[in-house]
Amino acid sequence: MSMTLSSKALYKSHGQDSSYFEGWEEYKTNPYNEITNPSGIIQMGLAENQLSFDLLESWLEKNPDVTRFKKEEGSSMFRELALFQDYHGLQAFKNELVEFMAEIRERKVIFDPDNLVLTAGATSANETIMFCLADPGEAILIPTPYYPGFDRDLSWRTGIEIVPIESSSSNGFRITKNSIEKVYQQARDNNIQVKAMFITNPSNPLGTTMTNEELSQIIQFSISNNLHIVSDEIYSGTVFNTPSFISILEALHFQKGHEIWDRVHLVSSLSKDLGLPGFRIGMIYSNNKALISAATKMSSFGLISSQTQYLLSKILADKEFMKIHREENKKRLKMRQESLVSGLNKCGIECLKGNAGLFCWADFRNLLKSNTFEAELNLWKIILREVKLNICPGSSCHCVEPGWFRICFANMKEKTLDLAVQRIKACVINSLGRGRDLGNICDAS
Amino acid sequence: MSMTLSSKALYKSHGQDSSYFEGWEEYKTNPYNEITNPSGIIQMGLAENQLSFDLLESWLEKNPDVTRFKKEEGSSMFRELALFQDYHGLQAFKNELVEFMAEIRERKVIFDPDNLVLTAGATSANETIMFCLADPGEAILIPTPYYPGFDRDLSWRTGIEIVPIESSSSNGFRITKNSIEKVYQQARDNNIQVKAMFITNPSNPLGTTMTNEELSQIIQFSISNNLHIVSDEIYSGTVFNTPSFISILEALHFQKGHEIWDRVHLVSSLSKDLGLPGFRIGMIYSNNKALISAATKMSSFGLISSQTQYLLSKILADKEFMKIHREENKKRLKMRQESLVSGLNKCGIECLKGNAGLFCWADFRNLLKSNTFEAELNLWKIILREVKLNICPGSSCHCVEPGWFRICFANMKEKTLDLAVQRIKACVINSLGRGRDLGNICDAS
Repeated sequence: MSMTLSSKALYKSHGQDSSYFEGWEEYKTNPYNEITNPSGIIQMGLAENQLSFDLLESWLEKNPDVTRFKKEEGSSMFRELALFQDYHGLQAFKNELVEFMAEIRERKVIFDPDNLVLTAGATSANETIMFCLADPGEAILIPTPYYPGFDRDLSWRTGIEIVPIESSSSNGFRITKNSIEKVYQQARDNNIQVKAMFITNPSNPLGTTMTNEELSQIIQFSISNNLHIVSDEIYSGTVFNTPSFISILEALHFQKGHEIWDRVHLVSSLSKDLGLPGFRIGMIYSNNKALISAATKMSSFGLISSQTQYLLSKILADKEFMKIHREENKKRLKMRQESLVSGLNKCGIECLKGNAGLFCWADFRNLLKSNTFEAELNLWKIILREVKLNICPGSSCHCVEPGWFRICFANMKEKTLDLAVQRIKACVINSLGRGRDLGNICDAS
Repeated sequence: MSMTLSSKALYKSHGQDSSYFEGWEEYKTNPYNEITNPSGIIQMGLAENQLSFDLLESWLEKNPDVTRFKKEEGSSMFRELALFQDYHGLQAFKNELVEFMAEIRERKVIFDPDNLVLTAGATSANETIMFCLADPGEAILIPTPYYPGFDRDLSWRTGIEIVPIESSSSNGFRITKNSIEKVYQQARDNNIQVKAMFITNPSNPLGTTMTNEELSQIIQFSISNNLHIVSDEIYSGTVFNTPSFISILEALHFQKGHEIWDRVHLVSSLSKDLGLPGFRIGMIYSNNKALISAATKMSSFGLISSQTQYLLSKILADKEFMKIHREENKKRLKMRQESLVSGLNKCGIECLKGNAGLFCWADFRNLLKSNTFEAELNLWKIILREVKLNICPGSSCHCVEPGWFRICFANMKEKTLDLAVQRIKACVINSLGRGRDLGNICDAS
């Protein structure tokens, strides 16, 4: 017998086996291309923001020395950066990041760069916070629906348990006091130690921001039950419509001086707001010095390339450019979302009213053969294989109500989005006319 | 009572409290600078390779388009790279990395890019392999002396145990069959499940490469006891003198077809060979498909910036340049090491005969007041605070014999190395002449 690997390495349910990741794999075998493969699958499962790259490209054209490691006086930054591996990060970069975070929050919150930890993407930031907050077997509460990758990111290597909080369309998937208390009590009854409440605000997959009421409930509940709060705010720069975004740190102002201040931890990133997932820029912000100290040490396992820290410190420092980018980006996101929503509406598909994110949360319940997750998965397969769109079924986001899908709108050209809507229209309208026999009548071409 | 953090976050003995890290902290308070602080502490505790940056800088001057995201035909790579977050890594980069690894091993070993996992530095590579091989409470065997950071990197978050294998100066700190069997038996007697043997070849801190005999013993022992072998070969490109380097994969050729092939895993990096620790380029190589699959998924927690993957793929692809860099770098390392060794010899300090690495393993036993680690630490403090050199005491590398120190020679200018040797000379020669009363007679200026 050969010596086996660890139970983690052999674990088969780390969330990468969900339909979310399956859809990606299938997409890769037949990706849409305007010219070379016009009947291929259109990728609408990827929460990327490609809408404002032209602005960044112009900036780079105008500032060639930045990428070339040139200092203003002409000497080279190269060796300095090549050697820089301090896990505290480049100070100039952290100074700019906290400014960026404050601007996104309309300066209702300000940040101290000393309370910031840099990580190779938000994936790493989230896992690091889990390592810092909970021991294996301890739990966190997460409102559903949530990002499918969290099962992997938050619990795979840390060994912590995820306790989902249910929500339903009846109140727009809002979190209620009852829903939180119900699962918390169940966890207690099962002798599970709950350490934290984990929220995503703006929500992925809902595309909505949390209300002041929701945030207050979460804060009150966490105070009463001595919990930490982790707020994943990586979509905070994508809020393109009213109501405006309220960060957990803004909502916390009413609790100034309370010990809860030390138990609130924020995750941020440049992957969604600036559309730079390839550059792996994530961060943790917390007032808890012990957590910041431990997380900084842990950041050794996923530091950001100094080359990339330097480049972004220069882009973010151009305040005039950043203001234009922020405003233009929001404008473009808004147009895209409205275009998708109105297209879907014309097919009889309603969307949850959203104001943020790179996706719509669409209601396909009318198209289900039965009110089950089996029917949802069947519909998903038809949409993937016949309609040729890769969208994300609600079940992979742990939604408890069958028939909801997340549809991304910012990772493609406008023309491609229009084509996707046409495909849905051709298919769905026919289908509805013929009594939901969707699979047979869709034209795959 | 406020809700506490996890036991990992509160853990106080993750290896960052050793004199190795302490010395760094003290160095930062008073760093040597030729002009502004000529009596400051000289940093000789940092295994950096600054000797060949001029070559890389010239390359960058000659290839300005690479850093500017320009493709050969003039269009921009920017958005492509900004979006690229596939955890399989840039194929072009992986193809060049396996070529680089083969060249360093004089093509006695060749590598398949599909068996490579990219990680944000070797720190992350090592931890990832541990997560893949062992469950919390299981153990790995590591020959001493070893890199002080391993206590943090290998066991802090993974919960695995490190079982040190003793070695002594009597045979030049070589690993023997007896020393391995002794600790393995002790672990078994204590009901500790040993999963792997972990070696560093070339050795940090010894600056030596492993002999064929040592490698054969390790392989035979691992076959007999059903263990994995992890070989950290991040210094493989620094072998500047004979005997030549033998990779574990070269030594394994004699076992072709044996199942041990699936249990050998290699760690590599560009931090030491090219001197780019700031760029965070590490990697895992293994023939074990299950481990590669799990490690690839885990690499989500520490991906390399696509900007940096792209830059390095271009540098490595310039084979002519890489050949010159490899040869010149070795020549310069050899000169530096010989200069330090001869300087120390003149002070009556012998070094272990080394042929690799960025440091010497120096024998200060004659200067100890007693044959204890207390005396070693006292001497270390004198050298740090009076002689003003930050070097690394053997005890922080878990050496079992007091009086050995690791002294780095490639992270400074030649002039600075000369000054460091002068400082030692001034101090040590006086001290020896006056009966080892080192502390009182050193001139701190």
